[in-house]
Amino acid sequence: MGNTTITAPKGFLASGISCGIKKSGKKDIAILVCPTGAKAAAVFTTNKIVSAAVTVSKQHIKSADIEAVVANSGNANACTGSKGIEDAIKMCKTAARLIDAKANQVLIASTGIIGHQLPMEKINNGIIIAAAKLSSSPEAGNDFAQAIMTTDTRCKQAFKTLNIGGVKITIAGTTKGAGMIGPNMATTLCFITTDVAISKNLLQKSLKDAVGNSLNKLTVDGHQSTNDTAIILASGLAGNKPITKTDSQYKKFAVALSQLCTDLAKQMALDAEGATRMFTVVINGAASKDEAIKAARAIADYDLVKCAIHGGDPNWGRIICAVGSCGVKLNPNKLTCVIGNITVFKNDQPVKFDPKKVSKIISQKEHTIMVNLGAGKFSDFCYGCDLSKDYVTINADYHT
Amino acid sequence: MGNTTITAPKGFLASGISCGIKKSGKKDIAILVCPTGAKAAAVFTTNKIVSAAVTVSKQHIKSADIEAVVANSGNANACTGSKGIEDAIKMCKTAARLIDAKANQVLIASTGIIGHQLPMEKINNGIIIAAAKLSSSPEAGNDFAQAIMTTDTRCKQAFKTLNIGGVKITIAGTTKGAGMIGPNMATTLCFITTDVAISKNLLQKSLKDAVGNSLNKLTVDGHQSTNDTAIILASGLAGNKPITKTDSQYKKFAVALSQLCTDLAKQMALDAEGATRMFTVVINGAASKDEAIKAARAIADYDLVKCAIHGGDPNWGRIICAVGSCGVKLNPNKLTCVIGNITVFKNDQPVKFDPKKVSKIISQKEHTIMVNLGAGKFSDFCYGCDLSKDYVTINADYHT
Repeated sequence: MGNTTITAPKGFLASGISCGIKKSGKKDIAILVCPTGAKAAAVFTTNKIVSAAVTVSKQHIKSADIEAVVANSGNANACTGSKGIEDAIKMCKTAARLIDAKANQVLIASTGIIGHQLPMEKINNGIIIAAAKLSSSPEAGNDFAQAIMTTDTRCKQAFKTLNIGGVKITIAGTTKGAGMIGPNMATTLCFITTDVAISKNLLQKSLKDAVGNSLNKLTVDGHQSTNDTAIILASGLAGNKPITKTDSQYKKFAVALSQLCTDLAKQMALDAEGATRMFTVVINGAASKDEAIKAARAIADYDLVKCAIHGGDPNWGRIICAVGSCGVKLNPNKLTCVIGNITVFKNDQPVKFDPKKVSKIISQKEHTIMVNLGAGKFSDFCYGCDLSKDYVTINADYHT
Repeated sequence: MGNTTITAPKGFLASGISCGIKKSGKKDIAILVCPTGAKAAAVFTTNKIVSAAVTVSKQHIKSADIEAVVANSGNANACTGSKGIEDAIKMCKTAARLIDAKANQVLIASTGIIGHQLPMEKINNGIIIAAAKLSSSPEAGNDFAQAIMTTDTRCKQAFKTLNIGGVKITIAGTTKGAGMIGPNMATTLCFITTDVAISKNLLQKSLKDAVGNSLNKLTVDGHQSTNDTAIILASGLAGNKPITKTDSQYKKFAVALSQLCTDLAKQMALDAEGATRMFTVVINGAASKDEAIKAARAIADYDLVKCAIHGGDPNWGRIICAVGSCGVKLNPNKLTCVIGNITVFKNDQPVKFDPKKVSKIISQKEHTIMVNLGAGKFSDFCYGCDLSKDYVTINADYHT
């Protein structure tokens, strides 16, 4: 079906190569270029400790046009002090020189181990090689997607086309992230390209909303990293009449972007470190929106629930325990829990059910847990995944 | 060294037997009796969903004298509705009849699977058999300690003697708990006996303070259960002049009780589900006491930190990530992290250190992680443990 990578929208070149940051020899430098200049928007981690790349990109995103994104994996360039900032700026300068842009037209993202200085000679050479390999081919898009991976076992990519005022628009994205994923930018790194013509303000709004309903709903281990970054570049080359207000055309684009981000978030959940399955927690009857999301995350982040799901064990008491423990308002007499389509606990009373049927539901690749708190009218949801021995293996062995 | 179990203080009888709640045939009913009546104090879970045992004990603790505690393991009698309450009251009545006390002079505690009704015929017979075996022998105390265990791999018991006004006082305690252990009653079940003469009010104060500085500082997986209960019974038979005000004698007793509870908390950390080692997180430089404990728990509860410690991996970036992510005030320019006696991060800059030395420190049975937030003058601490594959095995296989 042709190119479905981030080089699919008109106006983008990409590449991904190995420069030796990763001892494994896997790809670790990725470049994305929009030679005609792109409107850009980004959302960043809300961790109070941020990587040098986040600090620098927060400045550069203010530029009217962005021409490139440079990303490296294998080293987060976080907790690296003033040298870290210098190195991040150097990376932007090197890329800018090669593509004839200004340094502040280059965004930067890093992911990997925290607290180690970047191997700048390797990275400098890597950027030069990667720039020489820039291409709009699907292979180049795949190379980019591979070069941002850390403990991910597979690339996560998504692609959508839509019609805006009679013109075909393309959106494509790739994301990485398998651990250190918590609410408020559950992304680690996410790069989206589109050829739609849209104002910078509306591009920012559409990205923020889309991430809020997708990547921000995913929790693997409840903690956001120091490096989380989602960037969208819009080349404007599709030829549509530019979107400049929140009209029906904007809404059409925003919905498509949101769907693309949800697709990426679910791919991340299923490729979370050690995960074998994912689930959606839906909270109804909460006293407020904030309490609904708090309760949903309390369940999805609770190791005992995650282990039970991993074991296919319909141990719903742990779900109720998590909800009771997280501090949200609830009415015990109305508290209800439904797994898939089977009610296991209703109005504070256990309900007789066939454990084999519930075990089957939670052993599927995806399932839904619903809890009604009986305390109000608000609802929200989040995505989670099971906790396996492999999560421990991966994270006990990911050595510094 | 003689009796060091909960039957060591003057005036207590205990027993523990198997009545068939646990399929394994292990002990599951425990009784503690003070025939002369004891002053009693208790602290309970702050989970909004509590077991029937907690609901009933909260009423019975108001009695002036308590004559017995009945505990069962293998079934939590939580989320069991009105039948659960009836069953808990029946257990108290059965025990009361056998020892010639009133039902409201009997406290009750349950631990095990949530959401299943108690097998009351087995339990009724079990209480009768256990009452017939009551003894002040060390064996009886050990039987009690074994009968409250669930996934614990060993009994946790502690013992202390002290001198109050020339009179020898004895305090002894036992606790169970290996998972579903979070701050605010990180205990699951804890039973303490003493022969000190003390007023009910001061007994309650001393227990609350002691638990606050010990069992409440322990987090295994961040969630408190529906059943957490700590009970102290004071027979008053030691012969000391009763403690009725917060004088030096009270302080002596309170310190000893606190030390006993800390001993029990550390035993729990080292026997936490799958745990191979424990650690203390100390937070300095916090903007408030609340923020200090919040930051400490964020580190101790963070699966990536727990996995790194399990792997002996000095991956301190995860510690900083947890602190930055948990929402407390911090000054990045003053942020410092010390593992054991080795500074790994100081004033926002990574410090060169020998990874082998730090790996050796965090591979010990106990170590300390200190983080200075640089944001104020407050400190606090908590205890945590590593996360191993065995935690997953235990909790994916603990079937309903």
